[in-house]
Amino acid sequence: MKDPLKKIKPQVRALSAYHLKPYDCAIKLNQNENPYDLPAEIKEEVLSFARTRPWCRYPAFVPDDLIATFAEHYGWTREGILVGNGSNELILATLMVTLGPGARVLIPVPTFTLYKLESTVMGAEVATVHLGPDYTFDLDALRLAIREQMADLVVICSPNNPTGCILENDDLEAILKETDALVAVDEAYHEFCDRPSCVGLLSRHPNLIVLRTFSKAMAMAGLRVGCLLAHPDLAREIGKAKLPYNLNFFSHAAATVAIKHRATLRERIDHLRGQRDFVYRNLREIRGVRPYPSHANFILFEVEDPKRVFDGLAARGILIRDVSHYPMLSKALRVSVGTDEENETFLKALKEVMVSCSPPSLQGRGPGG
Amino acid sequence: MKDPLKKIKPQVRALSAYHLKPYDCAIKLNQNENPYDLPAEIKEEVLSFARTRPWCRYPAFVPDDLIATFAEHYGWTREGILVGNGSNELILATLMVTLGPGARVLIPVPTFTLYKLESTVMGAEVATVHLGPDYTFDLDALRLAIREQMADLVVICSPNNPTGCILENDDLEAILKETDALVAVDEAYHEFCDRPSCVGLLSRHPNLIVLRTFSKAMAMAGLRVGCLLAHPDLAREIGKAKLPYNLNFFSHAAATVAIKHRATLRERIDHLRGQRDFVYRNLREIRGVRPYPSHANFILFEVEDPKRVFDGLAARGILIRDVSHYPMLSKALRVSVGTDEENETFLKALKEVMVSCSPPSLQGRGPGG
Repeated sequence: MKDPLKKIKPQVRALSAYHLKPYDCAIKLNQNENPYDLPAEIKEEVLSFARTRPWCRYPAFVPDDLIATFAEHYGWTREGILVGNGSNELILATLMVTLGPGARVLIPVPTFTLYKLESTVMGAEVATVHLGPDYTFDLDALRLAIREQMADLVVICSPNNPTGCILENDDLEAILKETDALVAVDEAYHEFCDRPSCVGLLSRHPNLIVLRTFSKAMAMAGLRVGCLLAHPDLAREIGKAKLPYNLNFFSHAAATVAIKHRATLRERIDHLRGQRDFVYRNLREIRGVRPYPSHANFILFEVEDPKRVFDGLAARGILIRDVSHYPMLSKALRVSVGTDEENETFLKALKEVMVSCSPPSLQGRGPGG
Repeated sequence: MKDPLKKIKPQVRALSAYHLKPYDCAIKLNQNENPYDLPAEIKEEVLSFARTRPWCRYPAFVPDDLIATFAEHYGWTREGILVGNGSNELILATLMVTLGPGARVLIPVPTFTLYKLESTVMGAEVATVHLGPDYTFDLDALRLAIREQMADLVVICSPNNPTGCILENDDLEAILKETDALVAVDEAYHEFCDRPSCVGLLSRHPNLIVLRTFSKAMAMAGLRVGCLLAHPDLAREIGKAKLPYNLNFFSHAAATVAIKHRATLRERIDHLRGQRDFVYRNLREIRGVRPYPSHANFILFEVEDPKRVFDGLAARGILIRDVSHYPMLSKALRVSVGTDEENETFLKALKEVMVSCSPPSLQGRGPGG
């Protein structure tokens, strides 16, 4: 009997697929989406364009107009920009052109699990380095690991998902200066932090690759648009692994219009940052809950029994993310910042759940003591 | 001085990127698109849905409803179906989970160049086997090559781009029976041929993978939807290399609505098949032009000086595809089947160009003698 699975790479067979269990909850605070949909005027502008554009025709081979818009928006040269169907696709292209058996990728963890999964599929050796105290980047440990592991590629998510910590540009620059490795920085949550983007370092550091997405702050998770910024030579090589016509015309149009209306989106982002700080302060007040400061639109918090808390919230119609299977995070949950009302409902429900979860003897004690 | 390109795989650096030179022509017969846009009623149904659907929310993790629609449409089990941002993405996922250094992929050529390009990026050894006389599949040569090359994966495009030839299901089945290799059949142009899909072979052959797309007959090149059909075990493994949320909500909705209106689309496809045969018959009548029979929505034809003919048509506002750099095809051009009017204009222009291209002594002689 034939076994076609024999032709599948062993490292792929050993992998669990990236998976998300579906829950039916009224309030979704599990995917770090922007809870405020794009304004109707943006949607109508895109819909009007879509009505007249022939759907039967391929997108442009190179989306020059969108690249020009991104160049101005992010402040980088057109020749160094690739556009993707979400930034994940461009991360994958980066891995494809750099990683094979024998190549080494270094990933600070805990972080977004897809980097490791994709690197493993490519047959690379994946080394990890733990975040430091309070789940912040440990610069010394990171530099040491890059040297010791002789990393060819380092993938850093900053602000980091799911911890919310950030790698400061000075620290990133110290790394870029001393390593020959390519350093890919996923700035998926950048708009929610109050630091300059590391795009500003690109002109001095040809080993830097920056990823941006429209799925979070830009409120376009349903449409999947991302971009990669790097030295033009590097972008050209990564572009060889990018599929042609990867960005459909509708998402392309939506990104263009969204950037045009960025002032409106900026107000909403600022509001979400205020709400993040509101949620953080309130989480600190709940007994048994230990939140960590965040530069993104989500907050990591620890509790004694994360599965019970997750289930208790789900039973109350609130879906958050259980990240307790991540390295270091056995007590942790992650909640996205929602609308004002969603955040209030979440906090109220969490208080109830925390009371019901704690045995009387433990009530009032957080996991940190 | 740092050279970040050192971290790029040598086989990638050696590659030329998949590229398409832009031309500004009124009549586009270069990308095998369906010239008839989706009917307004289909577009309006999709636009209405898009108006109410929140753009800020991710698509479903697994698009169950679309998979169910595809299962019914293509006649295969839901568990064996993956949905992609165009079928190219699913071909890439297939290559990712099967190919690495040491693995061997066999590709009948000339064919769609992306298979080889992507396989090379993955570090696989790419072997090719030439099509037979008149650019048809040479079953004996193909079977021999699969054995001799000890192929792990065979990628067959049927109907084949750019030749239009088809691999009959009986022949495919003979291959599937005698090899342990995985055989991926790209049926991108299937709707234009009058043979049953090889999806019907899936239940007997767990080493078969079938790719379908909405970019050609289904008139959705601008939206990028494709699907992969295979044994559920195989689909599960390939799915590990597929990025999450790869299909945006708009393309998802458009595919659903297009399938609902498939009878309308079928009429147009039948019309295009009639036009293909019309163009073929007319090409045969033009001196110096040798067309090949096609099962797709394009026709390969040979002329003495393809670059001059291509340029002559472009100067007349008609863009076709110069495929003369493909293996075996140094005299060949490919023209997509357009609207009735476009086809007439193309034929008229080609006649003019052929007269102006041929030196008087050669007029009336085709490249085949």
